[in-house]
Amino acid sequence: MFAENVVQYLKHSHNNEGRQYSLQKVKFETDYQEGASPEILERLISTNLEQTSGYGYDSHCTRAKELIRQEIHRPNAAIYFMAGGTQTNTTIIKHLLTPCEGVISASTGHINVHESGAIESTGHKVLTLEGHNGLIDAEELRSYMEAFTADPTNEHMVQPGMVYVSYSSELGTLYTKSQLATINTVCADYGLKLFVDGARLGAGLMSDESDMSMSDIAGLCDAFYIGGTKNGALFGEAVVFPEPETLNLKQFTTLIKQQGGLLAKGRHLGIQFEVLFGDGLFYRNAKHANSQAMKIKRAFTERNIPFLIDSPTNQQFPILTPNQHEALSEKFSYEMWQPMNDGRIAVRFCASWATTDEAIDALIQEIQHLP
Amino acid sequence: MFAENVVQYLKHSHNNEGRQYSLQKVKFETDYQEGASPEILERLISTNLEQTSGYGYDSHCTRAKELIRQEIHRPNAAIYFMAGGTQTNTTIIKHLLTPCEGVISASTGHINVHESGAIESTGHKVLTLEGHNGLIDAEELRSYMEAFTADPTNEHMVQPGMVYVSYSSELGTLYTKSQLATINTVCADYGLKLFVDGARLGAGLMSDESDMSMSDIAGLCDAFYIGGTKNGALFGEAVVFPEPETLNLKQFTTLIKQQGGLLAKGRHLGIQFEVLFGDGLFYRNAKHANSQAMKIKRAFTERNIPFLIDSPTNQQFPILTPNQHEALSEKFSYEMWQPMNDGRIAVRFCASWATTDEAIDALIQEIQHLP
Amino acid sequence: MFAENVVQYLKHSHNNEGRQYSLQKVKFETDYQEGASPEILERLISTNLEQTSGYGYDSHCTRAKELIRQEIHRPNAAIYFMAGGTQTNTTIIKHLLTPCEGVISASTGHINVHESGAIESTGHKVLTLEGHNGLIDAEELRSYMEAFTADPTNEHMVQPGMVYVSYSSELGTLYTKSQLATINTVCADYGLKLFVDGARLGAGLMSDESDMSMSDIAGLCDAFYIGGTKNGALFGEAVVFPEPETLNLKQFTTLIKQQGGLLAKGRHLGIQFEVLFGDGLFYRNAKHANSQAMKIKRAFTERNIPFLIDSPTNQQFPILTPNQHEALSEKFSYEMWQPMNDGRIAVRFCASWATTDEAIDALIQEIQHLP
Amino acid sequence: MFAENVVQYLKHSHNNEGRQYSLQKVKFETDYQEGASPEILERLISTNLEQTSGYGYDSHCTRAKELIRQEIHRPNAAIYFMAGGTQTNTTIIKHLLTPCEGVISASTGHINVHESGAIESTGHKVLTLEGHNGLIDAEELRSYMEAFTADPTNEHMVQPGMVYVSYSSELGTLYTKSQLATINTVCADYGLKLFVDGARLGAGLMSDESDMSMSDIAGLCDAFYIGGTKNGALFGEAVVFPEPETLNLKQFTTLIKQQGGLLAKGRHLGIQFEVLFGDGLFYRNAKHANSQAMKIKRAFTERNIPFLIDSPTNQQFPILTPNQHEALSEKFSYEMWQPMNDGRIAVRFCASWATTDEAIDALIQEIQHLP
Repeated sequence: MFAENVVQYLKHSHNNEGRQYSLQKVKFETDYQEGASPEILERLISTNLEQTSGYGYDSHCTRAKELIRQEIHRPNAAIYFMAGGTQTNTTIIKHLLTPCEGVISASTGHINVHESGAIESTGHKVLTLEGHNGLIDAEELRSYMEAFTADPTNEHMVQPGMVYVSYSSELGTLYTKSQLATINTVCADYGLKLFVDGARLGAGLMSDESDMSMSDIAGLCDAFYIGGTKNGALFGEAVVFPEPETLNLKQFTTLIKQQGGLLAKGRHLGIQFEVLFGDGLFYRNAKHANSQAMKIKRAFTERNIPFLIDSPTNQQFPILTPNQHEALSEKFSYEMWQPMNDGRIAVRFCASWATTDEAIDALIQEIQHLP
Repeated sequence: MFAENVVQYLKHSHNNEGRQYSLQKVKFETDYQEGASPEILERLISTNLEQTSGYGYDSHCTRAKELIRQEIHRPNAAIYFMAGGTQTNTTIIKHLLTPCEGVISASTGHINVHESGAIESTGHKVLTLEGHNGLIDAEELRSYMEAFTADPTNEHMVQPGMVYVSYSSELGTLYTKSQLATINTVCADYGLKLFVDGARLGAGLMSDESDMSMSDIAGLCDAFYIGGTKNGALFGEAVVFPEPETLNLKQFTTLIKQQGGLLAKGRHLGIQFEVLFGDGLFYRNAKHANSQAMKIKRAFTERNIPFLIDSPTNQQFPILTPNQHEALSEKFSYEMWQPMNDGRIAVRFCASWATTDEAIDALIQEIQHLP
Repeated sequence: MFAENVVQYLKHSHNNEGRQYSLQKVKFETDYQEGASPEILERLISTNLEQTSGYGYDSHCTRAKELIRQEIHRPNAAIYFMAGGTQTNTTIIKHLLTPCEGVISASTGHINVHESGAIESTGHKVLTLEGHNGLIDAEELRSYMEAFTADPTNEHMVQPGMVYVSYSSELGTLYTKSQLATINTVCADYGLKLFVDGARLGAGLMSDESDMSMSDIAGLCDAFYIGGTKNGALFGEAVVFPEPETLNLKQFTTLIKQQGGLLAKGRHLGIQFEVLFGDGLFYRNAKHANSQAMKIKRAFTERNIPFLIDSPTNQQFPILTPNQHEALSEKFSYEMWQPMNDGRIAVRFCASWATTDEAIDALIQEIQHLP
Repeated sequence: MFAENVVQYLKHSHNNEGRQYSLQKVKFETDYQEGASPEILERLISTNLEQTSGYGYDSHCTRAKELIRQEIHRPNAAIYFMAGGTQTNTTIIKHLLTPCEGVISASTGHINVHESGAIESTGHKVLTLEGHNGLIDAEELRSYMEAFTADPTNEHMVQPGMVYVSYSSELGTLYTKSQLATINTVCADYGLKLFVDGARLGAGLMSDESDMSMSDIAGLCDAFYIGGTKNGALFGEAVVFPEPETLNLKQFTTLIKQQGGLLAKGRHLGIQFEVLFGDGLFYRNAKHANSQAMKIKRAFTERNIPFLIDSPTNQQFPILTPNQHEALSEKFSYEMWQPMNDGRIAVRFCASWATTDEAIDALIQEIQHLP
């Protein structure tokens, strides 16, 4: 059968041909700089001429949802597919909050910094707690809620209605199961919803330092999403409400439409998640990304180059001297993250499902020879 | 070269294999019920391992924009890519209106009926004119604006700020160049922006009854978009501001992000429009869809089955008796459009870039034997 | 006691002095063109130096709410005071709808025409039914809901969540108790909230043709408001939720604040409603307005001058010939309402709590001598 | 003339009768706990039966605007009247920002803390700078803008569009003219609008430590408002755009209506500002409030009771021991402001236009005998 050959072709070409950027720098900027897992492309091709109804009412979406429900051991979970992270965050938060409620986030949270005010565009304030390497501290959350509750003027304030956390976080870090459980308890005590942004959920779960499964995540929050875009999909995120009974989701598809997130050819989302969760590709992709990132981490560590954050996932944040940056940036591109007070610069190297051994080897070699 | 074979494979399989829905009805429901043009899939595969920056800052987007600028003979046009129609309409309209302004639409306009209140979710009212087979009448628009201007209470009313038209319309119909030019003149007289929703722009332009080119459209509006989703793309729409100088677009990308419409792997949009406009695939796809639809139209006409609307594009709206509907719906699926007062029902048959001759022949044969 | 004299002074001056507009036209434009009932001013003076907490947490608001609860025989009703009609409509509607829901209104409804898109500014669409002299027809409402429910595409549409009616309507007309009860039944059948805009509730209830009490209104809706501004208050509206148990009003005061409607010196609202409902001033004011309007109505009727609408309340809409308009407008001002096709013009005469017998007599005399 | 006697009556009763709260505590909670300046009530009475058009189209509003233009020496200033502070802040900010822009405020800013998310409800993020006793530091503002401008990801961030400052601040403090001028320069350098919240503008300008006139304020910002509610009006704020030419205000009245802030009987705002600016009452009221507050400040200072903030205006923030608080709170009410780490509590005493010498004397006596 021809279509299978697509995978062979792409896997073959992965290392030997088709990389036409020899004259350009090897990119470690982010985890969405390549196309998609070959298995996904193959399935798009083999299903291309099927005729299906639009907007997710097709057998692929149905099956992908079933696979995710099995994965989290929750047969009643409500699942929706959307095309990108910002629209996913915005739609979930808009659905779960009343007009007077805001969402509590670490100051570094994606919704607070890099979504152009999408949450505010729906009328909701992002209430910030100082993050600790990208993570909220449960006790600080409790103190915040105690102070809010005790404030005699709180009727004139945005009402905290939800806590937003990321797993893995924007800085590559992870909550332990115990930490997330404690946050969950504070939320329960104060009637707050808990939402886990899983744009990089795969990288989080497959970290050697993670003590959680996807089912654990599902058991500790009201909603989370499974990021496809940053883990080998062309695009796509899967929204999961593990216990939908009390969340009044009857209008959620209409809200996705209102927010501009309802893909006409919705099956393209179903097909991708079918592939990702059919035989563990979701986890293999993330494991590969983490594994390549750990090689980068070791290489910097061996040179005693410090890190801004000790990240156990696919994002690494070494702090370079100007000379080191000058040398590295000749052959590699990566993200400028944060200038340090002493003239050094923290940068981000990101590995993905598609990062090749060749690229890693070339990078390591360069690191070993840094000034 | 392997990748080219993908097209051969898909084109071959198009008619002979890979259609696994033999037990299900042949679908004529809409124009987004199949995957994507083989040429697009092929290009996604051949570019899959390229590394590019995210959010549209890649060479494919750059080249696709250049192709569109050439197509409309406007080298300064500002072009953006988005994933779907609702988010595209919403973002353009939100950008071009002040907080007190609303958008004038035919009552049948997509933004007024089928976008779940997306426009209102950004704070703007949709002001409606009674449509004539989906089209606004320029003189009625002028009367509306005259009445508004003369109304002594208009300071307490939503200010008309823009006119929204669709080409082809939601009912498959077309403005003549002269009609659109007159609407443009009324807009100029009253300081209204003019925006053309081109979700089915291809079908419009390739109709035998169209007297406009894409460049003509560009010359008669402030903004339009070129629909990919309904014309053979996996997904994707190209926003065009033909004369961007006065439109203050500096923050438009930020607004796309805020509206959740900025695709991380933005190149997937660039790649698709590169293919669509590289050698005329955009027009070939639309021409095929229209041509198949005309065969359907003729078949109904020959049986003296009337139409709700005389549509010259890929959507056809025959009015069926209950018996006819019962017979047809056994083997074919199509959209219920509107119940008639006499018990008959208007339905929609939609042809697409992917509608096969076999499917058309089978349908025609059935029509010929309708009761 | 001095303060009582204020009332004497104002009542005395009402007819004999203090009218300094002798050189200007007598105004019948609207019912908010004078200050406030003398009793209200007197109470503002006599309470002026009391010290009270802000935002409605004072004894006057408490007592005013109690008076209203007694008036409607609902001891558990939740009551809030706001400064104006648009903010009241907007806040109630925003509170009672989900993000995907819209509000059904007669096309002539104030929220649809004359609130500058305030409802849409909160993200909600106003869904219109053709009005019949300003009133919704219950059967047409039912048909609308039946069609919506049957529409297979309704997941992509704004969900009807509420019906908005006005009593008296923007055209001075009234629902019968039976009509409102039928609308209430349709709402119950389809899960719609029912909200009565009572900007001119007094005029409605005190009409000779009204068959409802305020308690009847309370029994037939989920929310209504009692208009003070158009019935003798300086400003102010009282929001009433007759059965608040299921309406989740815990954050309603916060929402009023968010919408900019929470008056710092909230007692000024309480004081006014205390006066209006302390000894029936609310009803006396409305009765006076209606009574003066009926004199105007009779005068036009006797001259066989027709009306646009047969209004039983304080707004009257005669249709004048150009000559009649020219003659009348020399001495009186009134609102241009609607040009007729034959060159005549429908105008609005409005009587208020403050309309004097002298003004009415002068107007009647003029009407009697119209060409 | 009778009406003048109202002032005599109220001024007389001010100290001798009409205070019916003898059994309750004397309130120093805030500056909006009494009614309104007698002169204002008097004018409401004397104009009560005038007939005027609604919505601010009356001679009182016209004259009040003229008085304010004279006060700030800007004959072209655009002036609007609104009923309360939150709606005023929200409407101005909504008007001056594009959808992607946010407003920079001190973290203590009223819009950031105590307006229930009103700014966010219009889609705009409040971007915070750490305040210094309620004030923004111009150099920190510059650093913030430099960092924003240099951030390569800033296209995905809320764009700073405006700076919001309060004069006097929420903590009673004041910018010097030089400080405000420097902030103005930073704004000019980065294309930011500058808006001064003048809810307590009177108290600010009349402070012994102020080096600015209202005209100076007008010369250093794009918009400000003059607070009436907290300075002796029943309610009401005057919005001032000193140089309206480039601000596109054509739709500003419509926006006020959309935001629910357009008072039907708009003349009540005009009348009040006519009185406040007719013979300096605005300044006399503020001077009185400040002067009474200074007596409170001296009394605490003499007892060596420290302050949270050194405020030169009508708000004073002493830090009390639990014993002191227990003693004081028996006879006086004031606002709990902030618990200190050592068990003491910072509180707020607020003086107003209506604070009597008797009340001050009683308070001072109590302070002198505090434990």
